[in-house]
Amino acid sequence: MTDYQRDLIPEPALRRLPWYLAYVSLLRERGDEFVSSTQISRELKVDASQIAKDLSFLDIRGKTRIGYEVPLLEHKLEEFLGFRRSHRAVVVGAGSLGGALMQDAGLSRYGLNIVAAFDTNPELAGTSCRGIPVYPASELTRRVREAGAKVGIITVPVEHAQSAADLLVAAGVKALWNFTPFRLSAPEGVVITNTSIYAHLAVMYNRMEFNG
Amino acid sequence: MTDYQRDLIPEPALRRLPWYLAYVSLLRERGDEFVSSTQISRELKVDASQIAKDLSFLDIRGKTRIGYEVPLLEHKLEEFLGFRRSHRAVVVGAGSLGGALMQDAGLSRYGLNIVAAFDTNPELAGTSCRGIPVYPASELTRRVREAGAKVGIITVPVEHAQSAADLLVAAGVKALWNFTPFRLSAPEGVVITNTSIYAHLAVMYNRMEFNG
Repeated sequence: MTDYQRDLIPEPALRRLPWYLAYVSLLRERGDEFVSSTQISRELKVDASQIAKDLSFLDIRGKTRIGYEVPLLEHKLEEFLGFRRSHRAVVVGAGSLGGALMQDAGLSRYGLNIVAAFDTNPELAGTSCRGIPVYPASELTRRVREAGAKVGIITVPVEHAQSAADLLVAAGVKALWNFTPFRLSAPEGVVITNTSIYAHLAVMYNRMEFNG
Repeated sequence: MTDYQRDLIPEPALRRLPWYLAYVSLLRERGDEFVSSTQISRELKVDASQIAKDLSFLDIRGKTRIGYEVPLLEHKLEEFLGFRRSHRAVVVGAGSLGGALMQDAGLSRYGLNIVAAFDTNPELAGTSCRGIPVYPASELTRRVREAGAKVGIITVPVEHAQSAADLLVAAGVKALWNFTPFRLSAPEGVVITNTSIYAHLAVMYNRMEFNG
């Protein structure tokens, strides 16, 4: 761990970095050597000074008039975003959404290594999905501890979200990725990330309505 | 369309409504008849006056001292959020994430009716997933028009995100649900909703790092 990662980057900046990464990866694929914040700005419609400020959280310097080295910037962005490390994770609730996440090979490219899933449905326990085993919920505590999983992905029905979170935290998980619309509580020091895709749908429908 | 829906609800309020819905659905399942904003406030840790203000966008009145009728509040929330209507959608990019969304039966409960998917991979075209057919990308324009699909779900590799968006808009789609980290452009009147789950991962990793 280097010192520059210890500055708490504001969340809006952190959320823009993956945009830059996506664009820089495109440039690397087409063989570009350098990119300036002005060029990123034109492409992504983000203010150039904002981009320079966001990138100042990374351990990289652009060269005057030339900009950043494309492969190095891609590497530094991936590193800073945590995509180059492997984070062991478990899925709780291997139903439709949980199963879908297990199907998504893309997650492993972003540093998420799903090692196991759990479900109360006896028909699911004992199955596997892309090599990820599904265990009965009763084995959660033991298996999370054994695997040293630090991320718990919660895709259970909403009424079981908090109890799943409590079990995961007791088993040593340090981050909860909550896909339910339930507002979880967790002890201090446990990160909660909410990805309620259904809430995004609501926003989309509402804006469509408004556009007539 | 009733008049109250014509007030543009602020996005933060709109994003809180699904939390209330999740809680109210729990109450309905366990047979509760009434719920007050104070009770919702205690459970979800949102200020009670904020809740009352958020719910004022709905066509529903709470009764003094008793609160809201649970089944009615659930119905009005679902209606307001667009979950009780069916929105025809297509998936562009039937790879891992696109396939995962097609697997997710949950989306249909939130008003999203995926009628078709498209992929440039000739091995995927001709297959189907949960009854949803996958067509060659060359048939996109014709099939989106025929189906009258209004929502385009973009799960292609990032370098094809903008061209997929352009095709969808030309075919009459009114909303783009973008799962890539690419910043799409679209003509005015087209809603863009970004759900970059990988960006959420970056935020989570960063916060874990900080907690040590």
